[in-house]
Amino acid sequence: MPEPEYKVVFEPSGRKIFALSGTILLEAAARAGIIIQTPCGGAGTCGKCRVRVTSGDCPASEACTSALGPLVAEGYRLACQAKIRGDLTVEIPKSSLFETQQQILTAGTSGKVKVARSVHKHFVRLRRPDTEKWDSDAALLQKHIGKVDIELDMLRELPGKLRKNGFTGTAVVAGRTLIDFEPGDTSEKCFGVAFDLGTTTIVGALIDLASGEEAAIEAEVNPQTSYGDDLISRLRLCREHPDGLNMLRKSVLNTVNNMIAALAERAGVHSRSIYAAVCAGNTVMQEIFCGIDPSPLGEIPFAPACRSLLRARASDLGLDIHPRAEAHVFPQIGGFVGGDTAAGVLACRLASHEAPAMLVDIGTNGEIVLAHNGRLCAASVAAGPAFEGARISCGMRAGPGAIEKILFDSDVRLNVIANTRPAGMCGSALIDAAAELLRVGLLEESGRILAPEAAAGLAPARITNRLVRRNGQTDFMLAPAEDAAGGEALFLTQKDIRELQLANAAIRAGINILLAREGLTPDRLETVFVAGAFGNFIRRNHAKRIGLLPDVPSHRIQFIGNASLQGAKQALISVKEREYAAETAAKIEHVDLSASPEFQQEFAAAMLFPKPNTEGESPCRTYA
Amino acid sequence: MPEPEYKVVFEPSGRKIFALSGTILLEAAARAGIIIQTPCGGAGTCGKCRVRVTSGDCPASEACTSALGPLVAEGYRLACQAKIRGDLTVEIPKSSLFETQQQILTAGTSGKVKVARSVHKHFVRLRRPDTEKWDSDAALLQKHIGKVDIELDMLRELPGKLRKNGFTGTAVVAGRTLIDFEPGDTSEKCFGVAFDLGTTTIVGALIDLASGEEAAIEAEVNPQTSYGDDLISRLRLCREHPDGLNMLRKSVLNTVNNMIAALAERAGVHSRSIYAAVCAGNTVMQEIFCGIDPSPLGEIPFAPACRSLLRARASDLGLDIHPRAEAHVFPQIGGFVGGDTAAGVLACRLASHEAPAMLVDIGTNGEIVLAHNGRLCAASVAAGPAFEGARISCGMRAGPGAIEKILFDSDVRLNVIANTRPAGMCGSALIDAAAELLRVGLLEESGRILAPEAAAGLAPARITNRLVRRNGQTDFMLAPAEDAAGGEALFLTQKDIRELQLANAAIRAGINILLAREGLTPDRLETVFVAGAFGNFIRRNHAKRIGLLPDVPSHRIQFIGNASLQGAKQALISVKEREYAAETAAKIEHVDLSASPEFQQEFAAAMLFPKPNTEGESPCRTYA
Repeated sequence: MPEPEYKVVFEPSGRKIFALSGTILLEAAARAGIIIQTPCGGAGTCGKCRVRVTSGDCPASEACTSALGPLVAEGYRLACQAKIRGDLTVEIPKSSLFETQQQILTAGTSGKVKVARSVHKHFVRLRRPDTEKWDSDAALLQKHIGKVDIELDMLRELPGKLRKNGFTGTAVVAGRTLIDFEPGDTSEKCFGVAFDLGTTTIVGALIDLASGEEAAIEAEVNPQTSYGDDLISRLRLCREHPDGLNMLRKSVLNTVNNMIAALAERAGVHSRSIYAAVCAGNTVMQEIFCGIDPSPLGEIPFAPACRSLLRARASDLGLDIHPRAEAHVFPQIGGFVGGDTAAGVLACRLASHEAPAMLVDIGTNGEIVLAHNGRLCAASVAAGPAFEGARISCGMRAGPGAIEKILFDSDVRLNVIANTRPAGMCGSALIDAAAELLRVGLLEESGRILAPEAAAGLAPARITNRLVRRNGQTDFMLAPAEDAAGGEALFLTQKDIRELQLANAAIRAGINILLAREGLTPDRLETVFVAGAFGNFIRRNHAKRIGLLPDVPSHRIQFIGNASLQGAKQALISVKEREYAAETAAKIEHVDLSASPEFQQEFAAAMLFPKPNTEGESPCRTYA
Repeated sequence: MPEPEYKVVFEPSGRKIFALSGTILLEAAARAGIIIQTPCGGAGTCGKCRVRVTSGDCPASEACTSALGPLVAEGYRLACQAKIRGDLTVEIPKSSLFETQQQILTAGTSGKVKVARSVHKHFVRLRRPDTEKWDSDAALLQKHIGKVDIELDMLRELPGKLRKNGFTGTAVVAGRTLIDFEPGDTSEKCFGVAFDLGTTTIVGALIDLASGEEAAIEAEVNPQTSYGDDLISRLRLCREHPDGLNMLRKSVLNTVNNMIAALAERAGVHSRSIYAAVCAGNTVMQEIFCGIDPSPLGEIPFAPACRSLLRARASDLGLDIHPRAEAHVFPQIGGFVGGDTAAGVLACRLASHEAPAMLVDIGTNGEIVLAHNGRLCAASVAAGPAFEGARISCGMRAGPGAIEKILFDSDVRLNVIANTRPAGMCGSALIDAAAELLRVGLLEESGRILAPEAAAGLAPARITNRLVRRNGQTDFMLAPAEDAAGGEALFLTQKDIRELQLANAAIRAGINILLAREGLTPDRLETVFVAGAFGNFIRRNHAKRIGLLPDVPSHRIQFIGNASLQGAKQALISVKEREYAAETAAKIEHVDLSASPEFQQEFAAAMLFPKPNTEGESPCRTYA
């Protein structure tokens, strides 16, 4: 039977999740998309992650209170130390949020990402032009709002709009360009949308451009997955089907536009009051979204059409916001390293790190960016969909019924999303399972699961008993038939481990090659930023154990959540951020690993799981 | 019977016209659209108008040679002195052309209007991107042709075009923007079109952007005349008919596009090889052409939508040239003083005149610009269509069968276009007739034609005999029934004189008000530039006699032809000219005469023809 889960509500956002007993509050918050800062890596020493438990702080039991850890200030506890032992409501002060999240929320006050709007609204009462001092309509308006460009289609509308509204209304200026003249005073209504166009998931946020605050957020499965869940199959469609690009573009655009409608409705905003958009995705997604045939990305040298920040009218992109809204698509880095990575580099300010720092985005494609001595280089590797739960016998996406966490103590402990019977396993649990099997010695570094007869005594019997001989190989039973949602036992198979090894080795080889190019060993990395929704859910020690992340002290590993969306938001609310992103992306050198013999060697070597780090840290333990 | 006409062919253009015996060569050239410079005003003293008569120079008669005047250098004679007495072929050296025409033709060599292209073509063989040094398609191209902007729709085409053509072809850059990548080396084919969008006539020229030379020229009647031959009736259509603007726009666009097709065919050029367009017209024409509702120009304060130079894509304007071509519509000055006047100011370099100088464009609307002490002011007056031949009893446009010139000697001498029997009279002949009647005393300054009985002895009988009493007024017979094409006598009626007085007074009042504002008397004008196709055909002394042009020595009056088209051409071949035109137009102050009581007074006073200038020059005599 799965362990019980507790409901945790985070204020002020009101987001809630269900978490297994014993889950660290920090991790639970990350799953809710709230990234709390942990400069000390969650060691409980820096005190930066303080939160206030406002309800559920031990209504009944002493054990519950003690599980939350000591009070560090009046009513405050450390999120990295507090364990969930009951339903909780937790208030997270802005000061505890991860820097860029904090900055967005506090934009305009003290954060580094100040709102520097590119859209301005000016409510004006224009003197009707009279004969004494004659002027043109454009000049009359410009006398009040300053010099702006007025393009032909706006100019066609301007005289009528001015006269219809008695020369009183709100001029909307995007960048240097007049994009509308609205009746009445609409200066309070000024929104933008930021989108992360993921291979698998699309996330969109509606942002109030005046305050920089998020008004609504939406996530949807990328409908292109119905044409193939990896980029290669979508590229093939573009190459082989005369209407392939159009089909893919329409499907993503349709979803994006539905999401915009939903965001606008949720926030009570008319979609015509959205005057700016910023999108970030990998190169293939961005090109498809822009209506550019991505076929050249499917052949050597995997060349995108353009690397620089793309500016277009919303209507030219097909976005259902104000038709003259200014839309930006993120600058790209090369090959499959696209705008999402550039946005991630912006979100974690990678370019400003003096000491070696790395950004790792783990997904179907893994992207790695290394900053060292003012240089930046980036590579992408095809990890395949194992981390997304695909090609794994009982794999599934992280959703209700998915085992998302596995720990071994006297038995195998599972955390299932939504607290149901397990229906399968998502990527984070796959890493957990492999790491724990390696730790207790039931999995060899070669990736072979020990035969039941060889495993006796290596771990508690309740664990070793789960090794089952099937089809000439040994599989590991995660849940017996009677516990599983489908009534059939769930296994981690030998073949699943092989799939994991492939995905794992690809990312590890990429990391190693970038480090080697700079003459660095992994321990020199001062910071490893782990981005991606998936990244939020993995356990640092487990990821290190299987070699997915470099073997650095855990406090140097920082989870930064959906950094692509985060970067897109920053570029949306600040012209300076957008310019900085463009400059930074142009400086990043793309390292093409696709045809590199060096990569093949590293990849082969990385197929072996690392040996245990004997002098390293204690194994991952989040249970009491 | 009409006088015989001779054929005159002008080289190197090959243009030909038919001219009445005794016509001055200078005037004949102007009728062919070739403006020869005459700094001395045609007095035969400066020697700048030299031309070479290459055939017809007196094959037979001594009289013919003597009519051509003296040789001023080997084979050269003065165009201002030479009279046509037979068929001729005349070669006009570039050095004799009016400055701006000369400059266009010699662009790139010694003229002041150097070609400063805004469209560049680069034939490139791009190294195919390889894996060693990866780059985007855009960056690869930019490495060869420099930094250019690439807009979304171009970016959508670029990867396909590069690959289809093996990375070899011609990049077309308009301004800073890449607009195409063409197969093969097309760098020799680079054209632009310049248009003068007149109320009555549309003239277009195809220009080779590399040399600045004219490849073809076309003129068509503005089809909007079918909706009304003045601007007011077109404005009314826009205000009263929901589809009025669209109807008017389509009609002019259709004609312009047909002309583009004809120009391209004549020059053997594909219309897709036309990458730039510049259009100049009055404010109403320009707004209609741009698809901007010109209705506000029909009500106080007659405000155009915009004064500045308008830049748009050819496709947005609806022009059938390269869809991404850069099109510019001339900056406007105010009220009805539009881009055509701004183009005229550019063509004659009015803004650079230190001494008082004036530009007068005589048409249905008259535009007047005065330059003095670095200041520029402009006004427009509604002259009505009298100068175009409308509202005149036997009036007609300047076309075959139109009397275009009238002189009195022992009888009335007529010049009829195309050497046929006269069918009517165009505007230049109207001025001639009035001036000659004033000179001989058959017309009073009040505008009253003398009764036959009062006229006896004032002029040769063959002239006074033409005064005919009809309907209680005196009319003047231009051609008896037996000479006229329609078999009915042609008359200049008392009512025609009244119409002329109205048109004449409007322009004269406009000129006087601008002069008075600057505290100037007419004689202070160092130069009077007369623009407009119509302007080319008028006789200076006659125009001064009726008060249409200021009473300055004739050598200060310069005919500059279709200055609107000329300015548009200059702005087409030179970015600097375009910028200069924009700066200059912005400096011109618009003087709104429409509601000015001052104008009403001046207008009333100007209804009287001026008294003869007793100390002035000899009457207009171009017959031997």
